[in-house]
Amino acid sequence: MMELWIPLNDKSAPAYEQIYRFIKEEIRQGRMAAHTRLPSTRRLSQQLGVSRGTVQLAYDQLVAEGYLEPEPCRGYFAAEIEVLLRLEENRTEDAAQGRRDGFQADCHPADRFPADAAEGGGNRFQVDFSPRGIDLEHFPLSTWRKLSRETLTAANKSLFSSGDPQGERGLREAICRYLRSARGVSCRPEQMIVGAGSEYLLMLLNQLAGRQAIAMENPTYKQAYRVFQRLGHPVFPVPMDKSGMEMEALRASGAQIAYIMPSHQYPTGIVMPVRRRQELLAWAAEQEGRYILEDDYDSEFRYRGRPIPSLCGSDAHGKVIYLGTFSKSVAPAIRVSYLVLPEALLARYQETCGFYSSTVSRVDQEILRRFLEEGYFERHLNRMRSLYRNKHDRLLAALEPLRDRFRIQGDTAGLHVLLESREPVPERTLLERAAAAGVGVYGLSEYYLTPPAQESGTVLLGYASLTPEQIEQGIQVLDAVWRK
Amino acid sequence: MMELWIPLNDKSAPAYEQIYRFIKEEIRQGRMAAHTRLPSTRRLSQQLGVSRGTVQLAYDQLVAEGYLEPEPCRGYFAAEIEVLLRLEENRTEDAAQGRRDGFQADCHPADRFPADAAEGGGNRFQVDFSPRGIDLEHFPLSTWRKLSRETLTAANKSLFSSGDPQGERGLREAICRYLRSARGVSCRPEQMIVGAGSEYLLMLLNQLAGRQAIAMENPTYKQAYRVFQRLGHPVFPVPMDKSGMEMEALRASGAQIAYIMPSHQYPTGIVMPVRRRQELLAWAAEQEGRYILEDDYDSEFRYRGRPIPSLCGSDAHGKVIYLGTFSKSVAPAIRVSYLVLPEALLARYQETCGFYSSTVSRVDQEILRRFLEEGYFERHLNRMRSLYRNKHDRLLAALEPLRDRFRIQGDTAGLHVLLESREPVPERTLLERAAAAGVGVYGLSEYYLTPPAQESGTVLLGYASLTPEQIEQGIQVLDAVWRK
Repeated sequence: MMELWIPLNDKSAPAYEQIYRFIKEEIRQGRMAAHTRLPSTRRLSQQLGVSRGTVQLAYDQLVAEGYLEPEPCRGYFAAEIEVLLRLEENRTEDAAQGRRDGFQADCHPADRFPADAAEGGGNRFQVDFSPRGIDLEHFPLSTWRKLSRETLTAANKSLFSSGDPQGERGLREAICRYLRSARGVSCRPEQMIVGAGSEYLLMLLNQLAGRQAIAMENPTYKQAYRVFQRLGHPVFPVPMDKSGMEMEALRASGAQIAYIMPSHQYPTGIVMPVRRRQELLAWAAEQEGRYILEDDYDSEFRYRGRPIPSLCGSDAHGKVIYLGTFSKSVAPAIRVSYLVLPEALLARYQETCGFYSSTVSRVDQEILRRFLEEGYFERHLNRMRSLYRNKHDRLLAALEPLRDRFRIQGDTAGLHVLLESREPVPERTLLERAAAAGVGVYGLSEYYLTPPAQESGTVLLGYASLTPEQIEQGIQVLDAVWRK
Repeated sequence: MMELWIPLNDKSAPAYEQIYRFIKEEIRQGRMAAHTRLPSTRRLSQQLGVSRGTVQLAYDQLVAEGYLEPEPCRGYFAAEIEVLLRLEENRTEDAAQGRRDGFQADCHPADRFPADAAEGGGNRFQVDFSPRGIDLEHFPLSTWRKLSRETLTAANKSLFSSGDPQGERGLREAICRYLRSARGVSCRPEQMIVGAGSEYLLMLLNQLAGRQAIAMENPTYKQAYRVFQRLGHPVFPVPMDKSGMEMEALRASGAQIAYIMPSHQYPTGIVMPVRRRQELLAWAAEQEGRYILEDDYDSEFRYRGRPIPSLCGSDAHGKVIYLGTFSKSVAPAIRVSYLVLPEALLARYQETCGFYSSTVSRVDQEILRRFLEEGYFERHLNRMRSLYRNKHDRLLAALEPLRDRFRIQGDTAGLHVLLESREPVPERTLLERAAAAGVGVYGLSEYYLTPPAQESGTVLLGYASLTPEQIEQGIQVLDAVWRK
């Protein structure tokens, strides 16, 4: 076991963050070898004169990002970081910059395709734990109205003439600034294409990259799968281990593009550790024409530790296509998503697809630009994060009585958790009993492209659109009907 | 020469329209045989006790629609109408209904793809006769602002949740009503798909119909050509005669889809006569999988006679795919277009593409719905029609001194006219001399997919975005520099 002398001398950053940064750099720079055992949280906290919770927070973050590996009853070990591809050097600085600009450190963009397999039946259920949907009760309507009014007053009727095919420059600059500070994505506005929803952008990508074979995590986000299929891409489902997409299976698939959600995989909630990220980047760098399509759909809602950096921010070889959206962070119906293209694809876009007009109204683009630039987005995210965190905590508290029968997974981030039965109960039984009692829950199996090796009796519980009372009421019902 | 006893007993319709309708029915019902010579306008006007101009108006409309054929110095003859496919019976009634509903008879939808080859160089010219662009000075900003404010006040935050994939039902109903009354298109809201621009809808169509070979008029609208090419459709340029796409060449091409603009061909301004329409419908009906893609892009701006009915309104066999947009009639940047699918393709859409989310913001859809339903659209069109008519008339008056050297074509509708040199002057010379004097004009040759048989020295003059003063000033300059 090593001693760690961490200088906690940065007054502007919390202690847990300084600990996190220090250990991360030790590992990244090779000063701390793989498999090194770290001091226990108790010991390090005594040594540094901070609370044990502070050290725990730092360790959790390092585990979440894959720098540390916890071993039950043995402690924490430095992970193996073989191919240390250049991590965006300015990311740490940018994150700090972001806070100075008013963004909280855990303020992240996010997005989701609007339609999903588990849309839920609307009024079919009294309590519907649909994993999609967001809290629209707290949509910033008055701000949106104010910006809309001011935009239309100030307009310059030129707002109604044809605009920039990639989206208005001002909006792209605002999104770039946001991505840089909150997601560590260092991109130029020239690389960005704003479009009316992620599905449209995938259509565009299809025209850029051709009908390449695409590897998808299994289980995955089915709506993206449907789009790829429709566009004629061969799709290879690749099994996941606890780090995400399995590399061996990816290699064996022969796919050219890997579609992944490294910050928070849907539906499993897995956060891809740094090593797997590096392996994926290395895989992509091996061959021309290989790309990683990073769908960074809901990284802004994280309840523990620092934000997980985007994979795109670590991409030194122009191999990551980054897909973002405002569907989850603002609202699905405003229909604004964006692609960040690596240089090679950008050149191809300009050659072959630059003639396509933008699909987003210029007035809407201007409203969103002001929403971002004038601090409204940041405030909205902070508010929503706090609201969602409250719902999340209420859900976990309500689930306490079920813990003897169910394992809870994917509960550090996002807007849903997974409940996995400890007993061999068929998923269908869980769904049917819940439905009979007026509660909607969603089976993990429907997110599989090919059936899982073994049925797990796992359901998804989304809570974003429910009130805390509905959450508690729903879980009480589930507790009762699943006890039978 | 026959006698025509036309009962002018309908008090609700103008005399010219009664004459037009009577003769049209005589021909359609076969009571007036092909090649029958009609009374001269002088004679018929004396007989009916109306002005000669009234009869001329009726004859012009019948010529425009292909029911009559004028022969210089000989008079008017009934055209050959071989295969009289069912014309939508309720079209005439609908048009009357439309007027009662407040729409003028010549109130038509229209649309244009937003980007075009001849976009013009922005500030490159002092006077830019770009054939694209619309008059945005008169965009109904205060109405739009009012509707936007009211929509956001009234919202029901559900407006920000995911909506109907085809577009909101209310908007589709409003567009259907409009199409029925103004364009004779009898469609159900179920057949309509609202999307963020015509290009997006062509991408969707590509996924529905597959990569079918497409026949396009030559010259044609280049932006649509680029979309088809990009999507991998083989494109066959088909030469035009004075009625539009040549049938022989269409048949020889082997294309499955004919992309046409029958109401007002772009760029030639040709209005497709009824006979060619019937031939096209018959061609499509011959074989399963054949379709006509009718781009009805600017039919609302017509300066003489009644509106030209849509081809879709005459389609009895589900062979016409109708593409409309609000880009020209409202503004390009609001990004709303729509497809009307025949039943067979509708079924395929529901099977294969129904999972795609709508690409238009629900708030924008609601604003547009109210704009249509509360009479604002009609008033806007009336206003724009009068503004454009004034510009059009000023342009034609300004062109008088050039008539000895140029033929004027395509001047009954739309937002541009064509000037064809009577002398063999190369198009390039015309363009270069104009540009050197700070005036932008656009050569017809750039709209050709394959070079025309002979260079015609023809330029397009768009006038929508210019003031009457700019128009006159620009033409004076052209007159001078082209005299050299």
